[in-house]
Amino acid sequence: MAVLIDCDMGEGYGLYRCGDDEGIMPHVTHANVACGFHAADPMIMRQTIALAKAHGVAVGAHPSFPDLQGFGRREMRMDRAEIAACVLYQVGALKAFLDEAGLPLSHIKPHGALYGVASRDEAIAEGIADAACVYGVKMLGLAGTEHERVWRRRGLDFVAEYYVDLDYTDDGRIIITREHAARDPDEAARRVVRMLREGLITTINGHDHTLRAEAVCVHSDTPNAVALTTAVRRAIADFA
Amino acid sequence: MAVLIDCDMGEGYGLYRCGDDEGIMPHVTHANVACGFHAADPMIMRQTIALAKAHGVAVGAHPSFPDLQGFGRREMRMDRAEIAACVLYQVGALKAFLDEAGLPLSHIKPHGALYGVASRDEAIAEGIADAACVYGVKMLGLAGTEHERVWRRRGLDFVAEYYVDLDYTDDGRIIITREHAARDPDEAARRVVRMLREGLITTINGHDHTLRAEAVCVHSDTPNAVALTTAVRRAIADFA
Amino acid sequence: MAVLIDCDMGEGYGLYRCGDDEGIMPHVTHANVACGFHAADPMIMRQTIALAKAHGVAVGAHPSFPDLQGFGRREMRMDRAEIAACVLYQVGALKAFLDEAGLPLSHIKPHGALYGVASRDEAIAEGIADAACVYGVKMLGLAGTEHERVWRRRGLDFVAEYYVDLDYTDDGRIIITREHAARDPDEAARRVVRMLREGLITTINGHDHTLRAEAVCVHSDTPNAVALTTAVRRAIADFA
Amino acid sequence: MAVLIDCDMGEGYGLYRCGDDEGIMPHVTHANVACGFHAADPMIMRQTIALAKAHGVAVGAHPSFPDLQGFGRREMRMDRAEIAACVLYQVGALKAFLDEAGLPLSHIKPHGALYGVASRDEAIAEGIADAACVYGVKMLGLAGTEHERVWRRRGLDFVAEYYVDLDYTDDGRIIITREHAARDPDEAARRVVRMLREGLITTINGHDHTLRAEAVCVHSDTPNAVALTTAVRRAIADFA
Repeated sequence: MAVLIDCDMGEGYGLYRCGDDEGIMPHVTHANVACGFHAADPMIMRQTIALAKAHGVAVGAHPSFPDLQGFGRREMRMDRAEIAACVLYQVGALKAFLDEAGLPLSHIKPHGALYGVASRDEAIAEGIADAACVYGVKMLGLAGTEHERVWRRRGLDFVAEYYVDLDYTDDGRIIITREHAARDPDEAARRVVRMLREGLITTINGHDHTLRAEAVCVHSDTPNAVALTTAVRRAIADFA
Repeated sequence: MAVLIDCDMGEGYGLYRCGDDEGIMPHVTHANVACGFHAADPMIMRQTIALAKAHGVAVGAHPSFPDLQGFGRREMRMDRAEIAACVLYQVGALKAFLDEAGLPLSHIKPHGALYGVASRDEAIAEGIADAACVYGVKMLGLAGTEHERVWRRRGLDFVAEYYVDLDYTDDGRIIITREHAARDPDEAARRVVRMLREGLITTINGHDHTLRAEAVCVHSDTPNAVALTTAVRRAIADFA
Repeated sequence: MAVLIDCDMGEGYGLYRCGDDEGIMPHVTHANVACGFHAADPMIMRQTIALAKAHGVAVGAHPSFPDLQGFGRREMRMDRAEIAACVLYQVGALKAFLDEAGLPLSHIKPHGALYGVASRDEAIAEGIADAACVYGVKMLGLAGTEHERVWRRRGLDFVAEYYVDLDYTDDGRIIITREHAARDPDEAARRVVRMLREGLITTINGHDHTLRAEAVCVHSDTPNAVALTTAVRRAIADFA
Repeated sequence: MAVLIDCDMGEGYGLYRCGDDEGIMPHVTHANVACGFHAADPMIMRQTIALAKAHGVAVGAHPSFPDLQGFGRREMRMDRAEIAACVLYQVGALKAFLDEAGLPLSHIKPHGALYGVASRDEAIAEGIADAACVYGVKMLGLAGTEHERVWRRRGLDFVAEYYVDLDYTDDGRIIITREHAARDPDEAARRVVRMLREGLITTINGHDHTLRAEAVCVHSDTPNAVALTTAVRRAIADFA
């Protein structure tokens, strides 16, 4: 089993930068590239894909609600058809830069609030799937959600993620924070191996929680993202 | 020689509508579909492509400067790389809906101020070409411009347009107006035939001006657009 | 008791227009002017205020969620501080044009989804009030809601609205439609008088529902808006 | 003569930050606060004004072309009326937060490309003046420009700026760079004193150039902005 290491990339905008994409790109297997609705603009998308190509990293689309100011973290009430059109637009925009670079679209992973809503709202998960099935690629998301159920029902691959640089509540929900704290790389590596071996993670209160994942997600703006990712990568290689 | 009849389509936004797309779609051969930067949103793009598909109309991308408020009619100072990225993004977004509909991308035609700047500024024409050559499709524009020269230099097809519902100055420039006036359909048909036969158009002051064109462009918000287009179409068919 | 007749105005954007502002402005007492977040741009705001001034119509701010594509009709998850900042920004922007025209800010009325959420969500109603109380003007909204309760608690005037060109459910909720149907002017006038005299409206199913209102709202894009407003205005004058 | 030290502030957007506003605010006399068109959103504007208030710093509006992606550094073709409306909107939006904080609007300074175009284009300078004269406050800009001439003609105060952390060409134009380099604080202090005393600055090629200024502008994203500003401030105090 190949375990992916994925990272959200290209999340700057205009002159603004977010995360150390250049530092972390060499250490991940999959880049989720912003498509302009929560972050990124055409110049940044093009540069991010060039960077991924230089490091042989697979590129996926990271579509969002249309909310640049809120970085795609604010839920918006949209129906299935609006979501489908909104996701198609973004994936297509990203694919243009992949076509230019001669790279295939590797996967799709909804961003932020869209990721969260897709987990629990069937209509939204269907809207994402309506768009994504045009491409037939892997979908990244959370195991055991509407997002997974809807996508698998179409006979397509779903890759479940574990967020190694975030905490989980006792009932298994990810605790989203505005800024990410540094994590001890060795501890992170141990957590990943335990999750892979036993299907268990440790919650913020120290309890065990069942979690299935075939991908480990890191954030490029976690202060020690490179050290963290390197340690996780080594642990995954040793485990395999 | 097949003469195209093309029309800018899908130029509404949200609840706003612009032009009678449903009325005119059956009468054109090529639709230039807005890509969200001067007009259109993902829902409108999807609907416009469905409409084009229903009538067997070829669909091209109609990318613009990023200026929704100005309807893409205000020049913006952008360099070649910015233009290339900006055009790629828009063409890719449109292509997603074509991929969903199972239609090919037929052509690319820059919109508004971008169309105008491309005519006279080599760097901007090159930026558009950098993006468009990823797709290798026909380019629509004005004969004898930087836009044409740059594109043909790449060995690709350029289709020159004649704007039958706009006036031309004595030195051959199009007079862009905020609202389009109705035109006499028979007179328009005669103008098109004369342009095709003699390579001459009549300017606003009644002078002759040389113009080469293989496409006749009509606007969906010209008051009698359907009657105008029908007359032009018949004249082209008779001429052929 | 002076009953207001208010209308949402200035809801075009760029080249797009929405509703017959010029036709209806002479017939209303209060204009709710869009502030650029769901509709309007600086040029349209300035023109709308000039039109209101020419007809002696009081001008209020009509702030919205930041959602131009959705015309402010899609709920967005924002907290109290975000709402307050968002509303302040819009009211201030509108006030600049009032300052230029030498007109006072008359009132504030949230738009679309913000209007709806303010009715039932105390935190959002507080956010709006945090911004609006900088100006201390009248607030327009629905009677018996969180919106009213929160605003009155600050000791400020709340003016309840009756939507004469929309239908109400049996439990008193407004039925929002994408397009507004024409209404019989005489029937509308009778409904307004009944509401003013008896505090009762007729729901879509023909039942009576209690409604208190000191303002009658009409939409400028209702097909016969001018006839409707004229009839309502006459009825209100006769009633007074 | 009181020499101002001004700084562009509040130029983040959403989660993005730009410059060390907290570090530099205690050391300047005037803050030019972004109004949402090239940078800033309502939350950031409100926070920036709170920060300025805490340090007793005068707050001015820093309006821009509507170009968030380009950080207001790309020229846009807009006419006088569009510019006036665009500037009014932004100044009004900022003033809402000043009204809330109980602070007066101190001044207006156009941003980026608008600042540059106002220097040489009379119509644009008039458009800015049409808006700014609603407030009658000081205008910041460059000496000897259309911007100054148009504003002074209205009998209002114009404060000329010297950019101590940028270089000047031999004919006195500012060299705008995407990133700002650190400057030697002592050298900067000497340059300011020389400019104040002799009306001369040293160009990038070491030549003298005449420059009149009553304000020294620093950038919050210059690496050693605080040290630079402190040194300049001390030099100005000693000079006075």
